[in-house]
Amino acid sequence: MTDKKKTTIVLFSGDYDKAMAAYIIANGAAAYDHEVTIFHTFWGLNALRKENQVPVKKSLLEKMFGKMMPRGADKMGLSKMNYLGMGPKMIKNVMKKHNALPLPQLVEMAQEQDIKLIACTMTMDLLGLQKEELLDDIEYAGVAAYIGDSEDGNITLFI
Amino acid sequence: MTDKKKTTIVLFSGDYDKAMAAYIIANGAAAYDHEVTIFHTFWGLNALRKENQVPVKKSLLEKMFGKMMPRGADKMGLSKMNYLGMGPKMIKNVMKKHNALPLPQLVEMAQEQDIKLIACTMTMDLLGLQKEELLDDIEYAGVAAYIGDSEDGNITLFI
Amino acid sequence: MTDKKKTTIVLFSGDYDKAMAAYIIANGAAAYDHEVTIFHTFWGLNALRKENQVPVKKSLLEKMFGKMMPRGADKMGLSKMNYLGMGPKMIKNVMKKHNALPLPQLVEMAQEQDIKLIACTMTMDLLGLQKEELLDDIEYAGVAAYIGDSEDGNITLFI
Repeated sequence: MTDKKKTTIVLFSGDYDKAMAAYIIANGAAAYDHEVTIFHTFWGLNALRKENQVPVKKSLLEKMFGKMMPRGADKMGLSKMNYLGMGPKMIKNVMKKHNALPLPQLVEMAQEQDIKLIACTMTMDLLGLQKEELLDDIEYAGVAAYIGDSEDGNITLFI
Repeated sequence: MTDKKKTTIVLFSGDYDKAMAAYIIANGAAAYDHEVTIFHTFWGLNALRKENQVPVKKSLLEKMFGKMMPRGADKMGLSKMNYLGMGPKMIKNVMKKHNALPLPQLVEMAQEQDIKLIACTMTMDLLGLQKEELLDDIEYAGVAAYIGDSEDGNITLFI
Repeated sequence: MTDKKKTTIVLFSGDYDKAMAAYIIANGAAAYDHEVTIFHTFWGLNALRKENQVPVKKSLLEKMFGKMMPRGADKMGLSKMNYLGMGPKMIKNVMKKHNALPLPQLVEMAQEQDIKLIACTMTMDLLGLQKEELLDDIEYAGVAAYIGDSEDGNITLFI
Protein backbone atom coordinates (compact mmCIF):
# COMPACT_ATOMS: atom_id res chain seq x y z
CA MET A 1 0.00 0.00 0.00
CA THR A 2 1.28 3.44 -0.90
CA ASP A 3 0.23 6.79 0.48
CA LYS A 4 -0.40 8.11 -2.99
CA LYS A 5 -3.79 9.45 -3.95
CA LYS A 6 -5.65 7.25 -6.39
CA THR A 7 -7.76 7.89 -9.47
CA THR A 8 -9.63 4.97 -11.00
CA ILE A 9 -11.58 5.36 -14.21
CA VAL A 10 -13.87 2.83 -15.87
CA LEU A 11 -13.79 3.63 -19.59
CA PHE A 12 -16.97 2.04 -20.94
CA SER A 13 -17.58 4.42 -23.82
CA GLY A 14 -16.20 3.97 -27.32
CA ASP A 15 -16.62 7.64 -28.24
CA TYR A 16 -13.55 9.67 -29.21
CA ASP A 17 -14.55 12.68 -27.12
CA LYS A 18 -15.39 10.68 -24.00
CA ALA A 19 -12.17 8.66 -24.26
CA MET A 20 -10.30 11.96 -24.66
CA ALA A 21 -11.89 13.28 -21.47
CA ALA A 22 -10.96 10.07 -19.66
CA TYR A 23 -7.33 10.23 -20.79
CA ILE A 24 -6.99 13.96 -20.09
CA ILE A 25 -8.24 13.47 -16.52
CA ALA A 26 -6.03 10.40 -16.13
CA ASN A 27 -2.91 12.16 -17.39
CA GLY A 28 -3.73 15.19 -15.26
CA ALA A 29 -4.10 13.07 -12.13
CA ALA A 30 -0.83 11.27 -12.88
CA ALA A 31 0.91 14.63 -13.26
CA TYR A 32 -0.35 15.44 -9.74
CA ASP A 33 1.25 12.23 -8.56
CA HIS A 34 -1.87 10.08 -8.31
CA GLU A 35 -1.71 6.36 -8.87
CA VAL A 36 -4.00 6.07 -11.89
CA THR A 37 -5.87 3.12 -13.40
CA ILE A 38 -8.07 3.06 -16.48
CA PHE A 39 -10.21 -0.05 -16.63
CA HIS A 40 -11.38 -0.52 -20.24
CA THR A 41 -14.62 -2.42 -20.63
CA PHE A 42 -17.17 -2.91 -23.44
CA TRP A 43 -16.71 -0.28 -26.20
CA GLY A 44 -13.91 1.38 -24.25
CA LEU A 45 -11.72 -1.57 -25.25
CA ASN A 46 -11.56 -0.10 -28.74
CA ALA A 47 -9.25 2.63 -27.47
CA LEU A 48 -6.68 -0.13 -26.87
CA ARG A 49 -6.97 -1.83 -30.27
CA LYS A 50 -3.99 -1.86 -32.57
CA GLU A 51 -4.55 0.05 -35.80
CA ASN A 52 -3.54 -2.71 -38.16
CA GLN A 53 -5.49 -5.93 -38.51
CA VAL A 54 -4.01 -8.80 -36.52
CA PRO A 55 -4.59 -12.33 -37.86
CA VAL A 56 -6.39 -14.28 -35.13
CA LYS A 57 -8.88 -17.13 -35.28
CA LYS A 58 -12.46 -15.97 -34.68
CA SER A 59 -15.99 -17.24 -34.93
CA LEU A 60 -18.31 -15.59 -37.48
CA LEU A 61 -20.04 -13.48 -34.81
CA GLU A 62 -16.70 -12.37 -33.39
CA LYS A 63 -15.52 -11.40 -36.87
CA MET A 64 -18.66 -9.29 -37.32
CA PHE A 65 -18.11 -7.48 -34.02
CA GLY A 66 -14.46 -7.01 -34.94
CA LYS A 67 -15.38 -5.43 -38.28
CA MET A 68 -18.07 -3.15 -36.88
CA MET A 69 -16.00 -1.75 -34.05
CA PRO A 70 -13.37 0.95 -34.61
CA ARG A 71 -9.80 -0.32 -34.76
CA GLY A 72 -7.93 1.88 -32.32
CA ALA A 73 -8.30 5.27 -30.70
CA ASP A 74 -7.91 7.25 -33.90
CA LYS A 75 -10.91 5.62 -35.57
CA MET A 76 -13.50 6.29 -32.88
CA GLY A 77 -16.55 8.52 -33.48
CA LEU A 78 -17.98 11.39 -31.46
CA SER A 79 -20.79 11.05 -28.90
CA LYS A 80 -22.41 14.20 -30.36
CA MET A 81 -22.32 15.79 -33.81
CA ASN A 82 -20.57 12.83 -35.38
CA TYR A 83 -22.15 13.55 -38.80
CA LEU A 84 -21.00 10.31 -40.40
CA GLY A 85 -17.42 10.91 -39.37
CA MET A 86 -17.15 14.60 -40.29
CA GLY A 87 -17.37 15.64 -36.64
CA PRO A 88 -14.20 13.80 -35.58
CA LYS A 89 -12.30 15.35 -38.52
CA MET A 90 -13.44 18.83 -37.49
CA ILE A 91 -12.50 18.25 -33.87
CA LYS A 92 -9.11 16.89 -34.86
CA ASN A 93 -8.50 19.93 -37.06
CA VAL A 94 -9.33 22.29 -34.23
CA MET A 95 -7.23 20.27 -31.81
CA LYS A 96 -4.26 20.52 -34.12
CA LYS A 97 -4.74 24.29 -34.35
CA HIS A 98 -4.80 24.55 -30.56
CA ASN A 99 -1.91 22.11 -30.09
CA ALA A 100 -4.15 19.73 -28.15
CA LEU A 101 -2.93 16.13 -28.15
CA PRO A 102 -5.00 13.67 -30.22
CA LEU A 103 -6.26 10.54 -28.48
CA PRO A 104 -3.55 8.08 -29.64
CA GLN A 105 -0.89 10.44 -28.20
CA LEU A 106 -2.86 10.76 -24.96
CA VAL A 107 -2.81 6.95 -24.67
CA GLU A 108 0.94 6.94 -25.33
CA MET A 109 1.49 9.62 -22.70
CA ALA A 110 -0.56 7.58 -20.23
CA GLN A 111 1.73 4.61 -20.80
CA GLU A 112 4.80 6.82 -20.32
CA GLN A 113 3.35 8.13 -17.05
CA ASP A 114 2.86 4.54 -15.83
CA ILE A 115 -0.89 4.78 -15.79
CA LYS A 116 -2.19 1.24 -15.42
CA LEU A 117 -4.22 0.40 -18.53
CA ILE A 118 -6.41 -2.63 -17.90
CA ALA A 119 -8.51 -4.53 -20.43
CA CYS A 120 -11.60 -6.20 -18.95
CA THR A 121 -11.24 -9.88 -19.81
CA MET A 122 -14.95 -10.64 -19.51
CA THR A 123 -15.97 -8.11 -22.15
CA MET A 124 -12.99 -9.06 -24.34
CA ASP A 125 -14.56 -12.51 -24.44
CA LEU A 126 -18.00 -11.10 -25.26
CA LEU A 127 -16.73 -8.91 -28.09
CA GLY A 128 -14.30 -11.54 -29.33
CA LEU A 129 -11.21 -9.39 -28.83
CA GLN A 130 -7.91 -11.19 -28.29
CA LYS A 131 -4.72 -10.05 -26.59
CA GLU A 132 -2.84 -9.97 -29.89
CA GLU A 133 -5.22 -7.26 -31.13
CA LEU A 134 -4.65 -4.93 -28.21
CA LEU A 135 -1.72 -2.65 -27.40
CA ASP A 136 1.36 -4.11 -25.78
CA ASP A 137 2.19 -3.52 -22.11
CA ILE A 138 -1.35 -3.39 -20.83
CA GLU A 139 -2.84 -5.55 -18.09
CA TYR A 140 -5.74 -7.99 -18.14
CA ALA A 141 -8.18 -8.32 -15.28
CA GLY A 142 -11.80 -8.61 -14.21
CA VAL A 143 -14.21 -6.77 -11.98
CA ALA A 144 -12.53 -8.02 -8.77
CA ALA A 145 -9.33 -6.18 -9.69
CA TYR A 146 -11.35 -3.05 -10.43
CA ILE A 147 -13.03 -3.15 -7.00
CA GLY A 148 -9.64 -3.67 -5.34
CA ASP A 149 -8.13 -0.70 -7.19
CA SER A 150 -10.98 1.73 -6.67
CA GLU A 151 -12.20 1.00 -3.15
CA ASP A 152 -9.36 2.96 -1.57
CA GLY A 153 -9.42 5.57 -4.28
CA ASN A 154 -9.99 9.29 -4.17
CA ILE A 155 -11.49 9.90 -7.59
CA THR A 156 -13.70 7.15 -9.08
CA LEU A 157 -15.35 7.81 -12.42
CA PHE A 158 -17.40 5.86 -14.95
CA ILE A 159 -17.02 7.32 -18.42
CA MET B 1 -22.96 3.17 10.85
CA THR B 2 -21.02 0.12 9.77
CA ASP B 3 -17.35 -0.21 8.98
CA LYS B 4 -18.13 -1.77 5.66
CA LYS B 5 -16.86 -0.20 2.47
CA LYS B 6 -19.57 1.35 0.35
CA THR B 7 -20.32 1.44 -3.36
CA THR B 8 -23.09 3.73 -4.58
CA ILE B 9 -24.14 3.76 -8.21
CA VAL B 10 -26.58 6.11 -9.91
CA LEU B 11 -28.06 4.18 -12.82
CA PHE B 12 -29.38 6.87 -15.14
CA SER B 13 -28.97 5.01 -18.41
CA GLY B 14 -31.61 2.78 -19.95
CA ASP B 15 -29.11 0.91 -22.14
CA TYR B 16 -28.73 -2.85 -21.70
CA ASP B 17 -24.94 -2.76 -21.84
CA LYS B 18 -24.57 0.12 -19.39
CA ALA B 19 -27.06 -1.44 -16.96
CA MET B 20 -25.09 -4.68 -17.26
CA ALA B 21 -21.88 -2.87 -16.38
CA ALA B 22 -23.62 -1.26 -13.39
CA TYR B 23 -24.93 -4.56 -12.09
CA ILE B 24 -21.65 -6.41 -12.67
CA ILE B 25 -19.74 -3.78 -10.67
CA ALA B 26 -22.46 -3.79 -7.99
CA ASN B 27 -22.48 -7.58 -7.65
CA GLY B 28 -18.68 -7.61 -7.66
CA ALA B 29 -18.52 -5.02 -4.88
CA ALA B 30 -21.12 -6.94 -2.85
CA ALA B 31 -19.05 -10.10 -3.23
CA TYR B 32 -16.14 -8.14 -1.73
CA ASP B 33 -18.36 -7.29 1.19
CA HIS B 34 -19.24 -3.72 0.25
CA GLU B 35 -22.55 -2.21 1.22
CA VAL B 36 -23.97 -1.50 -2.23
CA THR B 37 -26.75 0.80 -3.42
CA ILE B 38 -28.04 1.30 -6.94
CA PHE B 39 -30.12 4.43 -7.26
CA HIS B 40 -32.26 4.13 -10.42
CA THR B 41 -33.27 7.42 -11.98
CA PHE B 42 -34.67 8.51 -15.37
CA TRP B 43 -34.25 5.75 -17.99
CA GLY B 44 -32.45 3.53 -15.49
CA LEU B 45 -35.86 2.93 -13.87
CA ASN B 46 -36.69 0.68 -16.82
CA ALA B 47 -34.32 -1.96 -15.45
CA LEU B 48 -36.74 -2.32 -12.54
CA ARG B 49 -39.96 -2.59 -14.57
CA LYS B 50 -41.96 -5.80 -14.45
CA GLU B 51 -42.12 -7.61 -17.78
CA ASN B 52 -45.87 -7.93 -17.93
CA GLN B 53 -48.20 -4.97 -18.25
CA VAL B 54 -49.67 -3.89 -14.92
CA PRO B 55 -53.10 -2.21 -15.03
CA VAL B 56 -52.72 1.23 -13.44
CA LYS B 57 -54.51 4.50 -14.09
CA LYS B 58 -52.44 6.91 -16.18
CA SER B 59 -52.79 10.18 -18.06
CA LEU B 60 -52.40 10.13 -21.84
CA LEU B 61 -48.83 11.46 -21.67
CA GLU B 62 -47.90 8.90 -19.03
CA LYS B 63 -49.37 6.13 -21.18
CA MET B 64 -47.22 7.31 -24.10
CA PHE B 65 -44.06 7.29 -22.02
CA GLY B 66 -45.03 3.88 -20.67
CA LYS B 67 -45.44 2.47 -24.19
CA MET B 68 -42.24 3.98 -25.55
CA MET B 69 -39.99 2.79 -22.75
CA PRO B 70 -38.76 -0.81 -22.51
CA ARG B 71 -40.65 -2.97 -20.04
CA GLY B 72 -37.95 -4.54 -17.91
CA ALA B 73 -34.27 -5.30 -18.13
CA ASP B 74 -34.58 -7.87 -20.88
CA LYS B 75 -36.15 -5.41 -23.35
CA MET B 76 -33.51 -2.69 -23.18
CA GLY B 77 -31.40 -1.68 -26.20
CA LEU B 78 -27.65 -1.23 -26.59
CA SER B 79 -25.86 2.12 -26.30
CA LYS B 80 -23.82 1.23 -29.41
CA MET B 81 -24.54 -1.00 -32.40
CA ASN B 82 -28.17 -1.49 -31.46
CA TYR B 83 -29.17 -1.98 -35.13
CA LEU B 84 -32.92 -1.90 -34.48
CA GLY B 85 -32.64 -4.55 -31.80
CA MET B 86 -30.29 -6.96 -33.59
CA GLY B 87 -27.34 -5.86 -31.44
CA PRO B 88 -28.92 -6.96 -28.13
CA LYS B 89 -29.77 -10.37 -29.67
CA MET B 90 -26.17 -10.81 -30.82
CA ILE B 91 -24.78 -9.79 -27.42
CA LYS B 92 -27.20 -12.13 -25.64
CA ASN B 93 -26.16 -15.00 -27.92
CA VAL B 94 -22.51 -14.40 -27.20
CA MET B 95 -23.22 -14.05 -23.49
CA LYS B 96 -24.97 -17.40 -23.47
CA LYS B 97 -22.01 -18.99 -25.23
CA HIS B 98 -19.65 -17.57 -22.61
CA ASN B 99 -21.97 -18.38 -19.68
CA ALA B 100 -22.27 -14.70 -18.80
CA LEU B 101 -25.39 -13.84 -16.83
CA PRO B 102 -28.05 -11.84 -18.71
CA LEU B 103 -29.27 -8.61 -17.11
CA PRO B 104 -32.48 -9.94 -15.47
CA GLN B 105 -30.39 -12.59 -13.66
CA LEU B 106 -27.86 -9.94 -12.61
CA VAL B 107 -30.74 -7.96 -11.07
CA GLU B 108 -31.95 -11.09 -9.29
CA MET B 109 -28.46 -11.81 -7.98
CA ALA B 110 -28.24 -8.24 -6.72
CA GLN B 111 -31.42 -8.74 -4.74
CA GLU B 112 -30.08 -12.01 -3.32
CA GLN B 113 -26.88 -10.25 -2.27
CA ASP B 114 -28.93 -7.59 -0.44
CA ILE B 115 -27.88 -4.80 -2.74
CA LYS B 116 -30.20 -1.90 -2.04
CA LEU B 117 -32.17 -1.16 -5.21
CA ILE B 118 -33.73 2.29 -5.01
CA ALA B 119 -36.19 3.84 -7.45
CA CYS B 120 -36.02 7.64 -7.64
CA THR B 121 -39.51 8.87 -6.77
CA MET B 122 -39.11 12.22 -8.52
CA THR B 123 -38.36 10.69 -11.92
CA MET B 124 -41.01 7.99 -11.39
CA ASP B 125 -43.46 10.90 -11.21
CA LEU B 126 -42.02 12.51 -14.34
CA LEU B 127 -42.17 9.32 -16.39
CA GLY B 128 -45.51 8.27 -14.93
CA LEU B 129 -44.21 5.00 -13.46
CA GLN B 130 -46.06 3.59 -10.47
CA LYS B 131 -44.90 1.24 -7.72
CA GLU B 132 -47.12 -1.58 -9.01
CA GLU B 133 -45.15 -1.57 -12.27
CA LEU B 134 -41.76 -2.02 -10.63
CA LEU B 135 -40.14 -5.09 -9.08
CA ASP B 136 -41.09 -6.08 -5.54
CA ASP B 137 -38.73 -5.56 -2.60
CA ILE B 138 -37.12 -2.39 -3.85
CA GLU B 139 -36.96 0.93 -2.00
CA TYR B 140 -38.27 4.36 -2.94
CA ALA B 141 -36.37 7.53 -2.23
CA GLY B 142 -35.19 10.89 -3.52
CA VAL B 143 -31.92 12.73 -3.97
CA ALA B 144 -31.50 13.32 -0.22
CA ALA B 145 -31.26 9.58 0.40
CA TYR B 146 -28.73 9.29 -2.42
CA ILE B 147 -26.50 11.98 -0.90
CA GLY B 148 -26.75 10.29 2.50
CA ASP B 149 -25.76 6.93 1.04
CA SER B 150 -22.91 8.11 -1.13
CA GLU B 151 -21.23 10.83 0.93
CA ASP B 152 -19.41 8.29 3.10
CA GLY B 153 -18.85 5.95 0.22
CA ASN B 154 -15.71 4.56 -1.35
CA ILE B 155 -16.82 4.06 -4.92
CA THR B 156 -19.35 6.52 -6.37
CA LEU B 157 -20.34 6.14 -10.01
CA PHE B 158 -22.86 7.69 -12.40
CA ILE B 159 -23.73 5.28 -15.20
CA MET C 1 -9.21 23.64 3.90
CA THR C 2 -12.68 23.23 5.33
CA ASP C 3 -14.18 20.21 7.04
CA LYS C 4 -17.14 20.26 4.72
CA LYS C 5 -17.98 17.22 2.62
CA LYS C 6 -17.32 17.68 -1.06
CA THR C 7 -19.18 16.74 -4.22
CA THR C 8 -17.44 17.24 -7.55
CA ILE C 9 -19.22 16.60 -10.82
CA VAL C 10 -17.76 16.64 -14.32
CA LEU C 11 -20.61 17.58 -16.64
CA PHE C 12 -19.48 16.32 -20.05
CA SER C 13 -22.90 15.64 -21.53
CA GLY C 14 -24.95 18.16 -23.45
CA ASP C 15 -28.24 16.32 -22.90
CA TYR C 16 -31.05 18.08 -21.06
CA ASP C 17 -31.91 15.07 -18.91
CA LYS C 18 -28.32 14.31 -17.92
CA ALA C 19 -27.63 17.97 -17.11
CA MET C 20 -30.83 17.95 -15.03
CA ALA C 21 -29.60 14.92 -13.08
CA ALA C 22 -26.25 16.65 -12.53
CA TYR C 23 -27.84 19.84 -11.23
CA ILE C 24 -30.38 18.00 -9.05
CA ILE C 25 -27.59 16.01 -7.37
CA ALA C 26 -25.47 19.18 -7.05
CA ASN C 27 -28.30 21.21 -5.51
CA GLY C 28 -29.18 18.32 -3.21
CA ALA C 29 -25.58 17.99 -2.03
CA ALA C 30 -25.37 21.76 -1.44
CA ALA C 31 -28.58 21.58 0.62
CA TYR C 32 -26.81 18.98 2.76
CA ASP C 33 -24.00 21.42 3.24
CA HIS C 34 -21.49 19.94 0.80
CA GLU C 35 -19.00 22.11 -0.98
CA VAL C 36 -20.07 21.47 -4.58
CA THR C 37 -18.29 21.99 -7.90
CA ILE C 38 -19.59 21.33 -11.39
CA PHE C 39 -16.81 21.24 -13.94
CA HIS C 40 -18.35 21.79 -17.40
CA THR C 41 -16.41 20.30 -20.27
CA PHE C 42 -17.12 19.48 -23.94
CA TRP C 43 -20.90 19.50 -24.64
CA GLY C 44 -21.65 20.22 -20.99
CA LEU C 45 -20.45 23.77 -21.64
CA ASN C 46 -23.71 24.38 -23.50
CA ALA C 47 -25.58 24.41 -20.17
CA LEU C 48 -23.67 27.62 -19.40
CA ARG C 49 -24.31 29.41 -22.70
CA LYS C 50 -26.35 32.61 -22.70
CA GLU C 51 -29.62 32.31 -24.58
CA ASN C 52 -29.13 35.32 -26.81
CA GLN C 53 -26.43 35.49 -29.44
CA VAL C 54 -23.37 37.41 -28.31
CA PRO C 55 -21.31 39.15 -31.01
CA VAL C 56 -17.78 37.77 -30.81
CA LYS C 57 -15.12 37.27 -33.47
CA LYS C 58 -14.86 33.63 -34.58
CA SER C 59 -13.24 31.54 -37.27
CA LEU C 60 -15.50 29.75 -39.75
CA LEU C 61 -15.15 26.40 -37.96
CA GLU C 62 -15.89 28.02 -34.62
CA LYS C 63 -18.97 29.67 -36.09
CA MET C 64 -20.18 26.28 -37.33
CA PHE C 65 -19.73 24.66 -33.93
CA GLY C 66 -21.46 27.66 -32.34
CA LYS C 67 -24.46 27.29 -34.66
CA MET C 68 -24.77 23.54 -34.26
CA MET C 69 -24.64 23.50 -30.48
CA PRO C 70 -27.64 24.44 -28.32
CA ARG C 71 -27.54 27.97 -26.93
CA GLY C 72 -28.22 27.51 -23.23
CA ALA C 73 -29.76 24.97 -20.92
CA ASP C 74 -33.28 25.39 -22.23
CA LYS C 75 -32.35 24.39 -25.80
CA MET C 76 -30.67 21.07 -25.03
CA GLY C 77 -32.07 17.74 -26.30
CA LEU C 78 -32.75 14.48 -24.50
CA SER C 79 -30.33 11.52 -24.36
CA LYS C 80 -33.26 9.17 -25.10
CA MET C 81 -36.55 9.65 -26.93
CA ASN C 82 -35.59 13.06 -28.26
CA TYR C 83 -37.81 12.64 -31.35
CA LEU C 84 -36.55 15.73 -33.15
CA GLY C 85 -37.20 17.91 -30.14
CA MET C 86 -40.65 16.59 -29.20
CA GLY C 87 -39.24 14.62 -26.25
CA PRO C 88 -37.90 17.69 -24.42
CA LYS C 89 -41.28 19.45 -24.88
CA MET C 90 -43.09 16.45 -23.39
CA ILE C 91 -40.70 16.22 -20.47
CA LYS C 92 -41.01 19.94 -19.79
CA ASN C 93 -44.81 19.66 -19.84
CA VAL C 94 -44.74 16.85 -17.32
CA MET C 95 -42.21 18.70 -15.18
CA LYS C 96 -44.48 21.73 -15.08
CA LYS C 97 -47.40 19.55 -14.02
CA HIS C 98 -45.32 18.08 -11.20
CA ASN C 99 -43.79 21.43 -10.21
CA ALA C 100 -40.29 20.15 -11.01
CA LEU C 101 -37.79 22.92 -11.74
CA PRO C 102 -36.67 23.22 -15.37
CA LEU C 103 -32.93 23.19 -16.08
CA PRO C 104 -32.34 26.97 -16.36
CA GLN C 105 -33.90 27.41 -12.88
CA LEU C 106 -31.76 24.56 -11.52
CA VAL C 107 -28.68 26.40 -12.81
CA GLU C 108 -29.89 29.60 -11.17
CA MET C 109 -30.51 27.81 -7.89
CA ALA C 110 -27.01 26.35 -8.07
CA GLN C 111 -25.56 29.84 -8.38
CA GLU C 112 -27.67 31.01 -5.42
CA GLN C 113 -26.40 28.08 -3.34
CA ASP C 114 -22.80 29.06 -4.17
CA ILE C 115 -22.11 25.95 -6.15
CA LYS C 116 -18.88 26.56 -8.04
CA LEU C 117 -19.64 26.43 -11.77
CA ILE C 118 -16.44 25.99 -13.75
CA ALA C 119 -16.02 26.14 -17.51
CA CYS C 120 -13.17 24.03 -18.85
CA THR C 121 -10.92 26.44 -20.73
CA MET C 122 -9.33 23.77 -22.91
CA THR C 123 -12.62 22.60 -24.39
CA MET C 124 -13.87 26.20 -24.68
CA ASP C 125 -10.92 26.71 -27.01
CA LEU C 126 -11.72 23.55 -28.97
CA LEU C 127 -15.38 24.43 -29.44
CA GLY C 128 -14.64 28.11 -30.03
CA LEU C 129 -16.69 29.33 -27.06
CA GLN C 130 -15.72 32.66 -25.52
CA LYS C 131 -16.29 34.04 -22.03
CA GLU C 132 -18.76 36.62 -23.31
CA GLU C 133 -21.05 33.82 -24.49
CA LEU C 134 -21.24 32.09 -21.12
CA LEU C 135 -23.17 33.01 -17.97
CA ASP C 136 -21.75 35.63 -15.63
CA ASP C 137 -20.21 34.72 -12.28
CA ILE C 138 -18.73 31.41 -13.31
CA GLU C 139 -15.09 30.36 -13.03
CA TYR C 140 -12.61 29.29 -15.67
CA ALA C 141 -10.11 26.52 -15.11
CA GLY C 142 -8.42 23.43 -16.50
CA VAL C 143 -7.96 19.82 -15.53
CA ALA C 144 -5.46 20.68 -12.75
CA ALA C 145 -8.15 22.61 -10.86
CA TYR C 146 -10.52 19.70 -11.29
CA ILE C 147 -8.04 17.22 -9.81
CA GLY C 148 -7.41 19.61 -6.91
CA ASP C 149 -11.13 19.95 -6.20
CA SER C 150 -12.05 16.31 -6.47
CA GLU C 151 -9.10 14.48 -4.91
CA ASP C 152 -10.30 15.21 -1.37
CA GLY C 153 -13.94 14.80 -2.31
CA ASN C 154 -16.61 12.44 -1.09
CA ILE C 155 -18.76 12.13 -4.17
CA THR C 156 -17.05 12.26 -7.58
CA LEU C 157 -19.19 11.78 -10.67
CA PHE C 158 -18.74 12.00 -14.45
CA ILE C 159 -22.04 12.76 -16.15
